[in-house]
Amino acid sequence: MHVTIEQAETAIAAARAKAVELGTQMCIAVVDSGGNLKAFHRMDDAWVGSIDIAQKKAKTSVFFGMMTGQIGQLSQPGGPLYGIEHSNEGLITFPGGIPIVDADGVMSGAIGVSGSTVENDHTVAEAGAKAIGQTELPAHPWRT
Amino acid sequence: MHVTIEQAETAIAAARAKAVELGTQMCIAVVDSGGNLKAFHRMDDAWVGSIDIAQKKAKTSVFFGMMTGQIGQLSQPGGPLYGIEHSNEGLITFPGGIPIVDADGVMSGAIGVSGSTVENDHTVAEAGAKAIGQTELPAHPWRT
Amino acid sequence: MHVTIEQAETAIAAARAKAVELGTQMCIAVVDSGGNLKAFHRMDDAWVGSIDIAQKKAKTSVFFGMMTGQIGQLSQPGGPLYGIEHSNEGLITFPGGIPIVDADGVMSGAIGVSGSTVENDHTVAEAGAKAIGQTELPAHPWRT
Amino acid sequence: MHVTIEQAETAIAAARAKAVELGTQMCIAVVDSGGNLKAFHRMDDAWVGSIDIAQKKAKTSVFFGMMTGQIGQLSQPGGPLYGIEHSNEGLITFPGGIPIVDADGVMSGAIGVSGSTVENDHTVAEAGAKAIGQTELPAHPWRT
Repeated sequence: MHVTIEQAETAIAAARAKAVELGTQMCIAVVDSGGNLKAFHRMDDAWVGSIDIAQKKAKTSVFFGMMTGQIGQLSQPGGPLYGIEHSNEGLITFPGGIPIVDADGVMSGAIGVSGSTVENDHTVAEAGAKAIGQTELPAHPWRT
Repeated sequence: MHVTIEQAETAIAAARAKAVELGTQMCIAVVDSGGNLKAFHRMDDAWVGSIDIAQKKAKTSVFFGMMTGQIGQLSQPGGPLYGIEHSNEGLITFPGGIPIVDADGVMSGAIGVSGSTVENDHTVAEAGAKAIGQTELPAHPWRT
Repeated sequence: MHVTIEQAETAIAAARAKAVELGTQMCIAVVDSGGNLKAFHRMDDAWVGSIDIAQKKAKTSVFFGMMTGQIGQLSQPGGPLYGIEHSNEGLITFPGGIPIVDADGVMSGAIGVSGSTVENDHTVAEAGAKAIGQTELPAHPWRT
Repeated sequence: MHVTIEQAETAIAAARAKAVELGTQMCIAVVDSGGNLKAFHRMDDAWVGSIDIAQKKAKTSVFFGMMTGQIGQLSQPGGPLYGIEHSNEGLITFPGGIPIVDADGVMSGAIGVSGSTVENDHTVAEAGAKAIGQTELPAHPWRT
């Protein structure tokens, strides 16, 4: 199942509340399990450059069933996935993208957040994802 | 001034209510006066192909300070703007994109809707735009 | 549910058999319900230019839950969807793309065929789609 | 000569068998000696993000007549080909792309595999390539 618009709105509201708590201005994107945009929200005064980054983080996360930061650890110079960011019309591999997994362990989509430090981006994304599901996949990503 | 996130959410809620009233499933996008995405909402069961069209309608509308359908009348074969859709990484020039104009006659953004007939798309976009402003610009589009 | 690789192969084999019967050389693409490529097959001597067209037909069909030719009737000069081909990084709106619908009326993917006349392209696509499902959707496209 | 569809299917079947043996879910692409897609196969549960990577690995390999990992050794920071991934609308330079060379030492195409570790990707690609030819070119790549 894909994330529903009701779930996407719940995730965005939770992410936004966390962003306010942290005193940050974020772009927040939710994509379905096919990587297609479901909902997007740019807080006032968020960087315009974060619009694309938030969406690419969500896409990257759902395309590989991983948190973006995990891929970034493998894509450093000398690492096994060096340069993977050139695929799929651009990936973002630093933290802030997290899969959304339902109670059956199926990935229904992902959330991507950009607008502050990568630590804050990740924290805000996690608040969003956990409002509607889990963030950890079984051994292999499942999607429907 | 750019459209705020509060205004964008108000516009999307009004557009969504109209879409429900019409029995349609819509993608609804709001961009600021720079053409950059402010908020996006895909109703469940809306066409995946409408994600991009809704955003391009909003972009097209704000880039020229016109309703998309007005540009489409000029871009037909033999018309003065024939082929304008090739610019700006893709425009959409059929109805469903409408400028959002504030009380001072300044364009603060635009709304784009896709998911049904172009008449329904336009009606839903208009409901969104009118919830937060006007849809008609003075002689020349102003933006701030 | 998305089309499985077993279904995709069955569809391609059926399409290919029909292409041989017609004495044509085809590119045949199957995408899942998110528009992402599942399988692709280029017969020997098929046009290289058909590689992209077949994939875009399949994408177009699944993105709007329609046969591509239906969209093409609406996108002619003066028609309501004139210029829609500029969206979604390029659509193809002439015949040869057909949705794949399962027994529950849910769209699981689409097939796109290119390499001959549009009549032959459509016939070959239909042979592929019907080998694994139906080609007609309920009133509104459903996907999961 | 370009790889034929019969050869491409043989290569994909061999690659798939190896992938099953390794317990992995792979995207497998075969391109001809012009870099144009001949056949593609996405196993169920393979990463969606691997669709593009598998194709880019095959393209990269045939464009330079080398295994992708060889190019990746030259494209690291400080290396002679640093940043080559920006060319050709995106290259992938980590292992998993291998040239397919016929009995006369002529490159007829390439195979690209993505979906697991780069070691597994390479092993699966090699199984595919060796099912229909060699993987090593004479001093200079030849194509016809």
